[in-house]
Amino acid sequence: MFTAVDIITTKRNGHALTSEQITWMVNAYTAGEVSDEQFAALAMAIYFQGLNDNEIFALTTAMLNSGVTLNFSDLGKPTADKHSTGGVGDKITLPLTPLVASFGVAVPQLSGRGLGHTGGTLDKLESIPGFTVDLTEAHIRNQLRTVGGVICAATGQLAPADKKIYALRDVTATVDSMPLIASSIMSKKLAEGTDTLVLDVKTGTGAFMQDQDAARQLAEKMVWLGKEYGVATTAVLTRMDTPLGSTVGNAIEVEETLEVLAGGGPDDVVELTLTLAQHMLAGAGIDADPAEHLANGKAMDAWRAMVAAQFGDPDAPLPTAPHEHTVVAPETGVLTRMDARAVGEAAWRLGAGRQFQGQPVQATAGIRLHAKPGDRITTGQPLMTLYTETEDRIPAAQELLESALEVAETFRTPDLIIDVID
Amino acid sequence: MFTAVDIITTKRNGHALTSEQITWMVNAYTAGEVSDEQFAALAMAIYFQGLNDNEIFALTTAMLNSGVTLNFSDLGKPTADKHSTGGVGDKITLPLTPLVASFGVAVPQLSGRGLGHTGGTLDKLESIPGFTVDLTEAHIRNQLRTVGGVICAATGQLAPADKKIYALRDVTATVDSMPLIASSIMSKKLAEGTDTLVLDVKTGTGAFMQDQDAARQLAEKMVWLGKEYGVATTAVLTRMDTPLGSTVGNAIEVEETLEVLAGGGPDDVVELTLTLAQHMLAGAGIDADPAEHLANGKAMDAWRAMVAAQFGDPDAPLPTAPHEHTVVAPETGVLTRMDARAVGEAAWRLGAGRQFQGQPVQATAGIRLHAKPGDRITTGQPLMTLYTETEDRIPAAQELLESALEVAETFRTPDLIIDVID
Repeated sequence: MFTAVDIITTKRNGHALTSEQITWMVNAYTAGEVSDEQFAALAMAIYFQGLNDNEIFALTTAMLNSGVTLNFSDLGKPTADKHSTGGVGDKITLPLTPLVASFGVAVPQLSGRGLGHTGGTLDKLESIPGFTVDLTEAHIRNQLRTVGGVICAATGQLAPADKKIYALRDVTATVDSMPLIASSIMSKKLAEGTDTLVLDVKTGTGAFMQDQDAARQLAEKMVWLGKEYGVATTAVLTRMDTPLGSTVGNAIEVEETLEVLAGGGPDDVVELTLTLAQHMLAGAGIDADPAEHLANGKAMDAWRAMVAAQFGDPDAPLPTAPHEHTVVAPETGVLTRMDARAVGEAAWRLGAGRQFQGQPVQATAGIRLHAKPGDRITTGQPLMTLYTETEDRIPAAQELLESALEVAETFRTPDLIIDVID
Repeated sequence: MFTAVDIITTKRNGHALTSEQITWMVNAYTAGEVSDEQFAALAMAIYFQGLNDNEIFALTTAMLNSGVTLNFSDLGKPTADKHSTGGVGDKITLPLTPLVASFGVAVPQLSGRGLGHTGGTLDKLESIPGFTVDLTEAHIRNQLRTVGGVICAATGQLAPADKKIYALRDVTATVDSMPLIASSIMSKKLAEGTDTLVLDVKTGTGAFMQDQDAARQLAEKMVWLGKEYGVATTAVLTRMDTPLGSTVGNAIEVEETLEVLAGGGPDDVVELTLTLAQHMLAGAGIDADPAEHLANGKAMDAWRAMVAAQFGDPDAPLPTAPHEHTVVAPETGVLTRMDARAVGEAAWRLGAGRQFQGQPVQATAGIRLHAKPGDRITTGQPLMTLYTETEDRIPAAQELLESALEVAETFRTPDLIIDVID
C-alpha cells in the first residue's frame, strides 16, 4: 500500500502527508518494518518542510496509540498534570505536585531523568534516602487515590513509538523541530490520561527553545493539540535566562523544595509554583488560593505523605557533598547576568547530570547561588558554592562559569512569566 | 574529535563542512562507526542545503580513496572511459566501446546492472550466449592490452564507500541531490584510472534528471571535478524524451548494436555513438573520423574480439521471445510523442528489468519500435512489438503505453545533442 520511500519523498518535496501515511509510517517504524535510516530521513525532511495541523495531529495520535494509555476517571477526583520543557534549577514539579494534591486533585507526574544541562526530576528525588521512582500501575493508582500526588518514572509502555523516535532524533540532529517536539511531548502527556494539563514552556539561554517566538509557537501548538483531545490545556511561557531559585543540582534542589513547602523559599520558585498551581486547580474546577496551603502546612503534609508512599524517609537528612568551592564576585556593582546554560552545564560537569543514558548521577553535586541578577555585589563576596563528590571536576566547572557572570551599574529584572496561552 | 551529530547539525544549519569533517564522516560511516540513520540524516540535510565545491571535492576524494584505484598507465596506450546517466534504449556503450578500441585506445567500461525503468548494460550483454561480465583484474588488464575494449562488472573494491552510501540514498529518498550524484559518479569513474572521460548527461522524461538546467549543472560540476583530478573530461548533454534507437530491452538492443557496427542502425544511435567516440578519441590524442571504422568493419572486428575474450560466442544466434504482441497506431497523423519513461517502464514490466537487486531479467523481453516521433503514421499500422517470456505481463505493459503516444499534424524533431560541456 504505502512505501517509506514514497512517504519520505512526498514530505521532502514539501507536500502534506495523509493521516493514513503518517499512521502507517509510525506503526511500521515501531514494528521494525521501516528502518532507522528511513525514519531519520523523514525526520530531517520534516525539520525542513514542517508539518501542518492535520499531520501533527496524526503523528501525535499514532504515537499515543502505540502503547497503553492510562485512565484515572475511576478515582473519584479530578486529575491534573504539568509538563516543563526543561530549565536549569527547575525543581517546580517537586513542590507543585503535593501542593495541588493537597486540594484533592490527583497529580500523576510521570517524569524523566536528566540528560545534558537540565536536571532530571527523578534524579533529584532519588537523593531522598529510600525514595523509589519505579512504581507499578497499581501502586500509582492507589497512591493517587490516597495521597494524591505521585512523581515516578514513565514506563516504556506509554507511547513506545515516541520513545523510539526520540532516541533516533537525538543522534540524527532532528530534535530541534517544533512539530516533532509538540507531538512528542503531547503523545506522552495524553497517554497519561489527565483531565487538565498545564505546560511550562521555557525560553532563554538555559531553555531548550532559546528563541521566544519559537517557544510561543510550540506552546500554542501544544495547547491546540491538548484541546483537540478534550484536555483542558494551558501553557505558561516563562523566562529561562537565569537559573530558577538558588540551587541547581539534586539534593540541594530538594532542600529548596522543603523551604518552599514550609512557606519560604526563593521568590521566583514560589511565583512559578503558585502560577502553575492556579491553572491546574482552575482546570480541575477548584476555586482556591494555592498560597494558603504553603502557609498552613497542608502542602508540606502532602509532600511527606508522597515521599513516604514512595518508600522514602521524609525525616532523613539529605546527603551533603564532601567537596566544595566558593566562586567570588569579580567586581563591585549590580549582577546583571548569571547565564542559566553555563550554570546548568557547570552543575552537570560537577556530577549532577549524566553524559549518557544509564550513567549514575551524584546526589550531592550542584551549585548554590548566593546572588541573583538584580542583586548588588561587592568584589570578593561569595557568589556561588560548587559541590561535588569528585574534587577534580571543580576546575572544569569553574571555567564554564567564568563567562556566565556580568556586572554593571543598573539592572531591571524582567518578568519571569512572559505570557499565559490557553 | 568530530561527532556525527555536530557534523549533521552544521550542514542542517546551512554551514559548510571542512574537508576533515567530510573525510571523517565518510570513513567512519564506511567503517560502521557512524550509523545508517546518521548518514541518512546528513544526506537529507545535504539535499536541502547543498554542498559547495570544496565539500564536493572532499566527498568525492573520500569515496574514491575508500577502496582500490586502478592504474592502466603501463598498458602502453591511452585509456578512455564513458559514463551515461542512464536512458531508455541507451545501448550506446555496446557499439561505442569496440569502436573506440578499434583505434588503439583502451576502453575499460566498468558497468552496472539495471534497476528500474532504465536498462543495464551488463543485462543486455548477458543475452549473448556465454558472455561473462565478472572478470578478474588480471583478465581486464590483459583484455585491454590485447583487444582494447572491456565491458564488465565493477568490483565492490572500487569506491566501496560510494556503494554503501548509494544503497542508503536509494531507500531514504536522497538520490535526487546534484552534489551527491556528481560525487557518486565521479568517485567510481576516477577510481577506474582513466585518462579521458566522456559523460553522457541525459535530460527529459526518460532521464534521471528530467530538468535540463539541473542536468546542465550536474554536467558542469562533473567536468569541473574530473579536471581537478587531471582527467580530460567532457560532458555531452543529450535529450531523453524518446527512447534511443528502435529497441528497448536486452537481446534486441544487442541486435541493434550489431546493425550499427555493420554500418547501419538507427540514425540517433549512430549520431550519439559517433559524437561520444569523437570526444573520446580527441581526449586520447587521436585525430580520426570514427565513422570510417563503422564503414570498414574494424569496429565489428573489435566487437567480435571483445565478445570472444569474455567467453561469448559472437556467431551464436540471439535468443528470441516466446510471446509477442503488436501495438497499432490509434489514429492517422504525425507521431509527436513516444514517451521514454513509459516505454522504459513497459519494457521493465515485460521482464527486461528487475524490481529488486539480484532478481534475474528476461534476456528476450523488450519493445521494438516501428515508428518514432516525426514519422507519419496511419490508423491500425503496427507501432510497437512487445516481447516477453511471461505472457500475462502484456496487459500491464500495454496499459502503460496507452498514454505514451501522441499524434498531431506536424512535428519538428528536436536535436538529440543539446550541448557539449568541456
